[in-house]
Amino acid sequence: MISIEQALAIILENTPVLAAEEIDFTLATGHLLREDIVSDLDLPPFPRSAVDGYALRAKDVMTPPEKLRVIETIPAGKFPERSVGPGEASQIMTGAPVPKGADAVQMVERTQVNRDLVEVLASVQQRQNIAQQGSEVHINDMVLRAGTRLDPPAIAVAATVGRTRLLVGRKPHVSIIATGDELVHPATRPQAGQIRNSNGFSLLAQCAGAGVMASYLGVAKDTESSLTQLIGQGLDKSDVLLLSGGVSMGRFDLVEDVLNHLDVSCLIKKIALKPGKPMVFAVAKNGNLVFGLPGNPVSTMVTFELFVRTAIARMEGAEKPVRPLLQAKLQRKLVSKGSRRAYLPGWVQIREGDGALLAFPVPTRGSGDIVAFSKANALLIVPEQSDYLDSNDPVAFHPLDSFLAKEDRWAMEKLQNA
Amino acid sequence: MISIEQALAIILENTPVLAAEEIDFTLATGHLLREDIVSDLDLPPFPRSAVDGYALRAKDVMTPPEKLRVIETIPAGKFPERSVGPGEASQIMTGAPVPKGADAVQMVERTQVNRDLVEVLASVQQRQNIAQQGSEVHINDMVLRAGTRLDPPAIAVAATVGRTRLLVGRKPHVSIIATGDELVHPATRPQAGQIRNSNGFSLLAQCAGAGVMASYLGVAKDTESSLTQLIGQGLDKSDVLLLSGGVSMGRFDLVEDVLNHLDVSCLIKKIALKPGKPMVFAVAKNGNLVFGLPGNPVSTMVTFELFVRTAIARMEGAEKPVRPLLQAKLQRKLVSKGSRRAYLPGWVQIREGDGALLAFPVPTRGSGDIVAFSKANALLIVPEQSDYLDSNDPVAFHPLDSFLAKEDRWAMEKLQNA
Repeated sequence: MISIEQALAIILENTPVLAAEEIDFTLATGHLLREDIVSDLDLPPFPRSAVDGYALRAKDVMTPPEKLRVIETIPAGKFPERSVGPGEASQIMTGAPVPKGADAVQMVERTQVNRDLVEVLASVQQRQNIAQQGSEVHINDMVLRAGTRLDPPAIAVAATVGRTRLLVGRKPHVSIIATGDELVHPATRPQAGQIRNSNGFSLLAQCAGAGVMASYLGVAKDTESSLTQLIGQGLDKSDVLLLSGGVSMGRFDLVEDVLNHLDVSCLIKKIALKPGKPMVFAVAKNGNLVFGLPGNPVSTMVTFELFVRTAIARMEGAEKPVRPLLQAKLQRKLVSKGSRRAYLPGWVQIREGDGALLAFPVPTRGSGDIVAFSKANALLIVPEQSDYLDSNDPVAFHPLDSFLAKEDRWAMEKLQNA
Repeated sequence: MISIEQALAIILENTPVLAAEEIDFTLATGHLLREDIVSDLDLPPFPRSAVDGYALRAKDVMTPPEKLRVIETIPAGKFPERSVGPGEASQIMTGAPVPKGADAVQMVERTQVNRDLVEVLASVQQRQNIAQQGSEVHINDMVLRAGTRLDPPAIAVAATVGRTRLLVGRKPHVSIIATGDELVHPATRPQAGQIRNSNGFSLLAQCAGAGVMASYLGVAKDTESSLTQLIGQGLDKSDVLLLSGGVSMGRFDLVEDVLNHLDVSCLIKKIALKPGKPMVFAVAKNGNLVFGLPGNPVSTMVTFELFVRTAIARMEGAEKPVRPLLQAKLQRKLVSKGSRRAYLPGWVQIREGDGALLAFPVPTRGSGDIVAFSKANALLIVPEQSDYLDSNDPVAFHPLDSFLAKEDRWAMEKLQNA
């Protein structure tokens, strides 16, 4: 049994960074940029008016009101034709180029216009309301850096500097296999001893949350032939193969045999983690990865969050992929006995007023209790050296996908019922 | 000019909740559930073994070691055929049904087996390692509630209770129009006075981040005919029409005329907000919404975050859609003069060790400075009654999509250079 940190180190060491690929910038949100991007322009590319108003010489309006002669109107998109001389002004729109001669723009709200004369009612500073050429970025400055996770503002930057094709890390192809004779499809009513398969579908959803399209290959029976067929198929077509189940003591012998026959080496079999001790990490001869995730529904999801997401980010090219780790103030005692570090379902609430993060443990029956887990928006951590954390203790937590998206009503109910 | 809260109230009052629609559960992540879901089963549906081991009678092994006769092997998915009597045990796998007669399971690690005898090396409590039928959920208990934003654990719950079709809020159709004669496509090199269109594409990316597929209709020129054609097209095909630009004083007359001709009523024209004062909210006769977002790239993105996302969530059926508001400790003075509440780009870092949230203002040249904005992962708020917040003050912030996803290297560089 190894520690979580040892497991992460082994996974990162054995996870290949996939080749970069060029994609259209409109499809690039959520991808990891694999090249530095420089600007092909000064930004702004010309002195730009920040307001609607009148471009003028600041010294002409030092003792307002002053009347100036309007010599031109400059809408955005048009380059000014005339230079502004003493006693002159050009009407100008937000975003339009400031004409030569003018050193300031007075906003329209502080003027009154009468035919071709404008009365300027307040003085302005030199440069006021003008964004100077290159004041944001100079030509050839780096504007986006390799390693950036592309978000909407980054897409706007790429558009601004004309980069409609971007080099990004390829997202891995992931295949998912659920295992176990007890599993039936969710549309089926389980017979005695059977349960509905949920792991195959929660893993699909988690992959989507990590920005990865995954293929669900179905359920493998607990037989060598069924496992060999589906695992072989998964290894052929995917960079990462996720198995749920098949790693508990009674079943792993079979899965291990199949992996051995397929030339896949197991590098991790057990991790000091709760839930999720029997997690298998294995590498095929061609470098493709296999994760054997424990079959309890909560264990499957927790080990995906901790290990699979990290491997996916490394494959995309992230240098130091780590799951964000925040801290909240615990509102109830949180117990987890034993020497394994525990990740327990929690509801972290943002307190109105001071924004404090308050953590409420979600009452749970354990790693099979998917209904309890579905009320959580965070994994609360009880360290290996503690059997509990007390109310008011600080508690570290990993936010789940729903951390900031989940509605608050559930939480209120849970607290009342807890 | 109205306050942000007044604007939000007007928007929510005038935003229709769209009809619910039924979709496949595998496509439901990120959608808002519009029905309560109850379980059609006890969970677990049978007393379930939590470990690999031996199902037995606890009182038979009170003084270990004790030898028991193994009468059956119960893999997961099979229902036990024999009842466990005194001096007997059944081998059982994780997830399998516990046989009648047995009241505990001892884990395999604490046994030694020899042919059809198992030596149990440690005592167990009654009920130990058994998840009792219905201990997580009783049949007909509510397991997911209307108003829940569906995440991977919720998908697992739907699968577990056999709900492969789910009633969710329809996501609005959104159309996007950029406006302005100065705009050229990002693939084009701008001529004098022109700039590349970035807003059309950042809005597409923001819509995707809000889980909405949007259509980009192109750039409207600053003419009545161009605006009428594209706005008309957008109103026909979408629940929400986003215009970027066309709301500054010099241009709004034109857009307002076009909206009036198309029977669209403006309910908001100015908001006490920085950046983003001239934001237009309008409603068409058929209830479809129009947002006229200010054309500066940062203003477009900020007003989308504050107002458009809220309207989208309401359309899906969210009862109280609000943007999460957290708090961090400011690391540098943050200045924003004037009486409008300001939303400024910030980098919020999670301090290693204690998880404290530290906010660093991103140096910016203002609402045109998209490159500065792309380094932010949060909108830092300077209240209307303050001209600045000091270093070490608490600062409220809205997290951006990239809040937890952005790499830390950028931040370190910014801090060193700031």
